[in-house]
Amino acid sequence: MPDFSIAVDLGGTNLRIAAVSADGRILEKIALSTKIGSGPSQVVDAMCDAILRLSRRYSNGGTLIGAGIGIPGIIDLEAGVVRRSANLPEWAEFPVRSEIEKRLGTRIFLENDAKVHALGEQWMGAGRGVSNMAMITLGTGIGGAIVLDGKIFHGLNGMAGEFGHVTVEPEGVPCGCGNRGCAERYASATALVRMAQEAIAAGKARELAKAASKAEFSAKLIYELAMQGDDSARCIFHRFGRALGIMLADIINVLNLQMYVIGGGVASAWDVFAPSMFREVRERSTIYAATAPPNELRAVGQHERGQTIITRAVLGSDAGLYGAAKLAMG
Amino acid sequence: MPDFSIAVDLGGTNLRIAAVSADGRILEKIALSTKIGSGPSQVVDAMCDAILRLSRRYSNGGTLIGAGIGIPGIIDLEAGVVRRSANLPEWAEFPVRSEIEKRLGTRIFLENDAKVHALGEQWMGAGRGVSNMAMITLGTGIGGAIVLDGKIFHGLNGMAGEFGHVTVEPEGVPCGCGNRGCAERYASATALVRMAQEAIAAGKARELAKAASKAEFSAKLIYELAMQGDDSARCIFHRFGRALGIMLADIINVLNLQMYVIGGGVASAWDVFAPSMFREVRERSTIYAATAPPNELRAVGQHERGQTIITRAVLGSDAGLYGAAKLAMG
Repeated sequence: MPDFSIAVDLGGTNLRIAAVSADGRILEKIALSTKIGSGPSQVVDAMCDAILRLSRRYSNGGTLIGAGIGIPGIIDLEAGVVRRSANLPEWAEFPVRSEIEKRLGTRIFLENDAKVHALGEQWMGAGRGVSNMAMITLGTGIGGAIVLDGKIFHGLNGMAGEFGHVTVEPEGVPCGCGNRGCAERYASATALVRMAQEAIAAGKARELAKAASKAEFSAKLIYELAMQGDDSARCIFHRFGRALGIMLADIINVLNLQMYVIGGGVASAWDVFAPSMFREVRERSTIYAATAPPNELRAVGQHERGQTIITRAVLGSDAGLYGAAKLAMG
Repeated sequence: MPDFSIAVDLGGTNLRIAAVSADGRILEKIALSTKIGSGPSQVVDAMCDAILRLSRRYSNGGTLIGAGIGIPGIIDLEAGVVRRSANLPEWAEFPVRSEIEKRLGTRIFLENDAKVHALGEQWMGAGRGVSNMAMITLGTGIGGAIVLDGKIFHGLNGMAGEFGHVTVEPEGVPCGCGNRGCAERYASATALVRMAQEAIAAGKARELAKAASKAEFSAKLIYELAMQGDDSARCIFHRFGRALGIMLADIINVLNLQMYVIGGGVASAWDVFAPSMFREVRERSTIYAATAPPNELRAVGQHERGQTIITRAVLGSDAGLYGAAKLAMG
């Protein structure tokens, strides 16, 4: 049996625990649901039961390297405490790390979930063999993380990689952060729905209005219409791609990393936003224009030395498990 | 005598060579002019004469650690060659490093001049004791550099820190780089003159027009009018500060560094652009708003743990000498 880590992906809905071998194979996964209503302590109990079960099963020959946990929200890494979490509001100020360490008797590693995803993609996903990369997670908002020399780069206050709040439209839509025209006001699931509602209200989107009257409005619905060739839906994804392109060009001009991995649920709409995104990045970053691969729309796994790669994530939600396991491996 | 490095600051006009002690004192400076017309080889001869003179003088007791050279333009660090330089056009493809090493018989270190300045400010200037910082150099354009763990962060192609090409106005003024609305189209000496000319052409700047008819138009002239309270000149510096603020907020949101040092000739107009700059950064970066010191306009040398500092460079042109010396010290 190989040496292994235990990985925990704690979300507002799902709680997943896995044993991951040191050479990057998921040996076994346990999928639970996060019983938010019963409070952090009960969730930690269920988590620890699963961790113990897995660690006993794979300790037969292999050594447990450690356990890593990805949590949505702002984590105080030094204190091992969740400071704030929109998805797990009751966990604010809960001493996660010490509670788990008390139950398990081993040292565990906490990290913000978006950062854990980036580490997972870097270790075993789109970024295999790439030491310096950024990950952009397109979901309700935009999550971000920077990996330098194979480690998460936290910055001074653990806030490095707040890509979603890069300004792409100085006089644009107000954002909850206090800024106007943040990238995530144009390139997230929330933004897609808002832009579609605006188009309908302006009487510019007949098909969208029709679809919206039948089903609940969602980013997926807008995507499906765009795939069917509806102009107003395509126009929304064009604005999405453009905003993402401005944001990416800024990040590239600042960081000049080797790879930018785009993940999250909305990344599955790649085919409808990527062409506008790439056009915008090329125009706005000479670094990118000078170093982009010729086949940029399909650059997964194919790249040469000195090239800048913008590509899709490949691990899906397993990125969180790979990344959490890698956390504990150092 | 202390151990020392030799520092060279090679510019399009001035060539300065210094002996700098390992504890960061400039022991002696030699100021020459760069005889561009006579070609790289002659300039290298003059440089090497000065290096030898200084190294002989200070080798009496101290050990020569090495020599570092800051050069404007794009440097191929591996090959030791200047790839492109607007200020030293004849140096393109000239094998600077090997030519100097041949004459001196010692290993030398090359680096782009903006990056050398950043290293100098980090070692002995505004960033003393700060491991992670960025430097923004406001001159004809905007130069930039990132220092992480006390070392220059180059990125994949040596282009990390191209802050001047961060987009601050998506449909703004076209830039030579192919983008529109780059920060340096609004926050550089060139930009100040352009904005003033535009204001005059629009008939909106009587004092500027009067001043421009008497003297050659310059950023300094606009600054002097702004200091005298002229509205149109102040308005130009307000736009300057706003663009710089958008750019800084983006960099802060991406990198979350401890310090951002603003240098270069135009930084001397700090009093007229800094208030707009700080207002904009506060509005556009929650990271900054949450971690800024209360006395941000005068934060030189005063800061607490966890605070984000935006401050002026303090070494002036000597930053290039300190940085070049530090290059050789590793």
